[in-house]
Amino acid sequence: MATTYFSKRNLQFLLHEVFKAEELTKYEYFSAHDRETFNLVLDSATYIADTLMHPYLKEVDRNQPELKNGQVTVHPKIKEYLKAMGEAGLIGAGFSFEHGGQQLPEMISSCVGFIVMAANNGMMYTGLTSGAAHLITSFGSPELSQTYVPNMLDGTWQGTMALTEPQAGSSLSDVTTSATPQSDGSYKIKGQKVFISAGDHDAAENIIHLMLARIDGAPKGTKGISLFVVPKYRKDEQGSLVDNDVTSTGVYHKMGQKGVPAMHLTMGSNDNTIGYLVGEPHQGLPYMFQMMNEARIGVGMTAAAIATAAYYAALQYAKERPQSRRLNQKGQLDSPQTPIINHPDVRRMLLFQKAVTEGSLSLLIEAARLYDISEVAEGQEKENAFLLLDLLMPVAKSYPSEMGVQSVSQSVQTFGGYGFTEDFPVEQLYRDIRITPIYEGTTGIQAQDLLGRKMTMKGGRAPQLLFAEMSKIIAEASTFDDLKPYADKLKAEIKRTQEVVTSLMPHAQKGDIERYLADATLFLEMFGIVVIAWQWLKQAVVAKQTLLTQNPESDELAFYEGKIHTMKFYFHYEVPKTLGLAQRLTDMEVLTIVTEKELAL
Amino acid sequence: MATTYFSKRNLQFLLHEVFKAEELTKYEYFSAHDRETFNLVLDSATYIADTLMHPYLKEVDRNQPELKNGQVTVHPKIKEYLKAMGEAGLIGAGFSFEHGGQQLPEMISSCVGFIVMAANNGMMYTGLTSGAAHLITSFGSPELSQTYVPNMLDGTWQGTMALTEPQAGSSLSDVTTSATPQSDGSYKIKGQKVFISAGDHDAAENIIHLMLARIDGAPKGTKGISLFVVPKYRKDEQGSLVDNDVTSTGVYHKMGQKGVPAMHLTMGSNDNTIGYLVGEPHQGLPYMFQMMNEARIGVGMTAAAIATAAYYAALQYAKERPQSRRLNQKGQLDSPQTPIINHPDVRRMLLFQKAVTEGSLSLLIEAARLYDISEVAEGQEKENAFLLLDLLMPVAKSYPSEMGVQSVSQSVQTFGGYGFTEDFPVEQLYRDIRITPIYEGTTGIQAQDLLGRKMTMKGGRAPQLLFAEMSKIIAEASTFDDLKPYADKLKAEIKRTQEVVTSLMPHAQKGDIERYLADATLFLEMFGIVVIAWQWLKQAVVAKQTLLTQNPESDELAFYEGKIHTMKFYFHYEVPKTLGLAQRLTDMEVLTIVTEKELAL
Repeated sequence: MATTYFSKRNLQFLLHEVFKAEELTKYEYFSAHDRETFNLVLDSATYIADTLMHPYLKEVDRNQPELKNGQVTVHPKIKEYLKAMGEAGLIGAGFSFEHGGQQLPEMISSCVGFIVMAANNGMMYTGLTSGAAHLITSFGSPELSQTYVPNMLDGTWQGTMALTEPQAGSSLSDVTTSATPQSDGSYKIKGQKVFISAGDHDAAENIIHLMLARIDGAPKGTKGISLFVVPKYRKDEQGSLVDNDVTSTGVYHKMGQKGVPAMHLTMGSNDNTIGYLVGEPHQGLPYMFQMMNEARIGVGMTAAAIATAAYYAALQYAKERPQSRRLNQKGQLDSPQTPIINHPDVRRMLLFQKAVTEGSLSLLIEAARLYDISEVAEGQEKENAFLLLDLLMPVAKSYPSEMGVQSVSQSVQTFGGYGFTEDFPVEQLYRDIRITPIYEGTTGIQAQDLLGRKMTMKGGRAPQLLFAEMSKIIAEASTFDDLKPYADKLKAEIKRTQEVVTSLMPHAQKGDIERYLADATLFLEMFGIVVIAWQWLKQAVVAKQTLLTQNPESDELAFYEGKIHTMKFYFHYEVPKTLGLAQRLTDMEVLTIVTEKELAL
Repeated sequence: MATTYFSKRNLQFLLHEVFKAEELTKYEYFSAHDRETFNLVLDSATYIADTLMHPYLKEVDRNQPELKNGQVTVHPKIKEYLKAMGEAGLIGAGFSFEHGGQQLPEMISSCVGFIVMAANNGMMYTGLTSGAAHLITSFGSPELSQTYVPNMLDGTWQGTMALTEPQAGSSLSDVTTSATPQSDGSYKIKGQKVFISAGDHDAAENIIHLMLARIDGAPKGTKGISLFVVPKYRKDEQGSLVDNDVTSTGVYHKMGQKGVPAMHLTMGSNDNTIGYLVGEPHQGLPYMFQMMNEARIGVGMTAAAIATAAYYAALQYAKERPQSRRLNQKGQLDSPQTPIINHPDVRRMLLFQKAVTEGSLSLLIEAARLYDISEVAEGQEKENAFLLLDLLMPVAKSYPSEMGVQSVSQSVQTFGGYGFTEDFPVEQLYRDIRITPIYEGTTGIQAQDLLGRKMTMKGGRAPQLLFAEMSKIIAEASTFDDLKPYADKLKAEIKRTQEVVTSLMPHAQKGDIERYLADATLFLEMFGIVVIAWQWLKQAVVAKQTLLTQNPESDELAFYEGKIHTMKFYFHYEVPKTLGLAQRLTDMEVLTIVTEKELAL
């Protein structure tokens, strides 16, 4: 079993050296903190990850939740974990003091998520609770907050997001769960929800669903969807918890993330499920969408974390496993076999994993920083941060997921046959990560969001802002002789991206949205490669400056030189993929739109 | 559960219309056959697949083999399956009449493998037996054949390939299992083997290992490895079966292909394991390599079969699952949701799966045809077929495996969240196929074989032959107006490939093999894309000719037009990937070769 599952050194580099987390404390809202309190929180997460999570990686996977007699049983360590996270204040890390939180920036609380998910993503419970509680504190009444949030943040009650229905997955406009007003202001809820992660289990004393439903008579489509708190046990007039008629109809057995039950729930079997409206009627989807960025940073972090854990397992194996001799010394049979990390093909696979995982984490911390600024800054600064975040979100969710799947596949490949066995953790991580391009909006949905909305909103101001940010890094990098070629490459990639957009735009202008978005997923892929190139150049600039000004030695020297080397690797091996993508995206031949002619697929 | 797991129509198209299987019957060796006998064999395989295999896909996966008290127990259906395959003559399909076989071409017997693996690749037992028995009939004495082969071909005894050792995976020169000569001409065997598929189980009465070992005093490296038959039970002087001291030390638990036990075996714990030399001493590796092409066609077929089964599951789901409205009709909430196959992004994923799976199968049948010709033809024809086959083998093993992994990933994605659950077969197929880029030579090893050996052998005659074959198809395609642009594209890809080779060659000429092969895996990827483009153009030419001469209607019309459409899709979506690969391959910056400087990876 691999003992390293993430790099504390790299996390410190990104948080403090590249993104200067402490700068956030200049804003009143975060002013109680400093670098030390940030690091204390991360240490506390690491302690929980080391002691209560990572040792149970396999066990939690091998003993998946089962539904028996209407009750879902999960691994006993889950309860300990929830309690520890609650006691350490980590479920409420990002909440205001007023709501019992630590008022920490998303930059820090999302890194807590990174650490715990790298340790054991099968214990993915607390992020769900934070997200659900945040919906209540943001849009619900003070009474709702008082009733539900404290027990959620201390790890006693579980929160969920209950959106998906059997007939409404990607298409939320087709949600049919109904809400009938009652005389006391509450609603009777009736309907079914599927794939509700942590939707029922015995490690929490209550489950609080943040549920989308349609109030009787509401408008069709997304404009008629409201948000409700629907608890498993509701408080009766005496304040005692009574059953709220939310039935666990089934638990999905999954390929990965087996520790977390994905539930099929039925509300109102006995006409006795009560829901409490959050905020205004018919505002459910806008509310959800305002939380979406946070949730999607969470999924990106989960993907980056899983891929990171797999990378460190592969790296350790590659350093220890002797096999064959170096290619220029093939015939020297008397010499011992060399560790496989010395084979260029293996080193290529490892550099790929490093480039993907550290590039992903960098982007996610960038996104979290923008999230924080968009929350606490004012005026133009706030608006710019928000626009940039909105543009980057589809990439920050999809790149770590899609490329993380490929990265873990290369981790498996590094192990050879052993990677396919349960003797090492990578086969599990390969199964686990495969869900990330699906939940919280599939890659296809993210792509439509990017090209169909984010690229064009406010007259295309978001990509303008992004390219301006990239240009700043290009200018900084250009002052170093050995970084300048890469700055020039990034400049060329921006131009290529703009040309692709220009060639697609006429379809949108003609109103042929189907054609405009037909290859949106490939555009997302290309755009993602360029965004991560920017992140790598940014890291390389900091590394270069540090090498020049601080003369680091031994491990520290290797760390900074490794950053510059990996940046180069990324530009030489990953960036050229944009050539083929741009060719496809500017190709006028359409082959994926339904025609009258029926083809045998 | 999907009911279609392969397309009989497509198999008939490839075998008879594109590759004209019946032409093989002009050779004396195959003269007892005709199209009808070929099809009867495939029907018989399909019957077994339908009745004894596909219905147990999940069951065999969920009940993985366990080792208890030294004995491995497998699913009870395995025994029935082995018996049925033996009785139908399908284990010996490719063997000569003399050895009790059906003397069928590899073209047909490899398609038997395709059908049964598409039905249930967790029952991957008989291909191993055929391969092992073929080593005996090809290189062993008549006595060895008489003793072992009949029981293997009738499905009573299992055959295995026992190459890998704990310290010798990709590096077979480091095999240490020892063979000590005995006075009766047999050898005492001592050592360990790992990852031996079907290396022990209770569905066979005996297990016959074809095992690599080193005779005492043999030269170091690959030149001192010999091949032995090492049975689980050997015949004593009275002809009774007695235990041969082959101990099942462990069974690996795997991510996929769970139905087949991968064994850790120990020989000679009680100094009582006897092995029988096959052929000459020290010829073990050359013998194995002569069988390698057949074995690698088998792995390619397995990968293509798994990806095909996943594609048909995804296709059926995409036709039945309504979700959302078409993008140009977004607001029309009164209209019903449309089946997801009508969304361009889903159609793109399906066309990708069709392009990969049918392109792979086409190449594999081409390879099998070349194998047959190289076996039964004479003179130049034989030599050319052999050279071309040798060149294509790394692609025929790797493309279906590597791209099959991606294809099944797209099958999962087509299902959305359901694809991640055990309710549908794709999560299993996603786990199953991941081993195929690893066993029978990893992709990295295949790449070194292609660039390091096959491209340059005999003064580079093999790629010359291949490009000449491609040029024939280019000429044919150029006679059709709508195919000519694709013929031109293929011509340009050949040129690009040649330029890449020209730019790499100086490294080889300088003797810097490590640099020459550093990006071999990317060369294999690029070369594979071009080879499959050729296969698609070949299929399109036949489809075009048929459309013009036979005026097919309804389903048949859709079938042929679908072929041309998929060819176009492949050229527009997959072929452009060569741009980025060529750029990387001709890039002089090396980043994956070990330098003095220690980098933090």
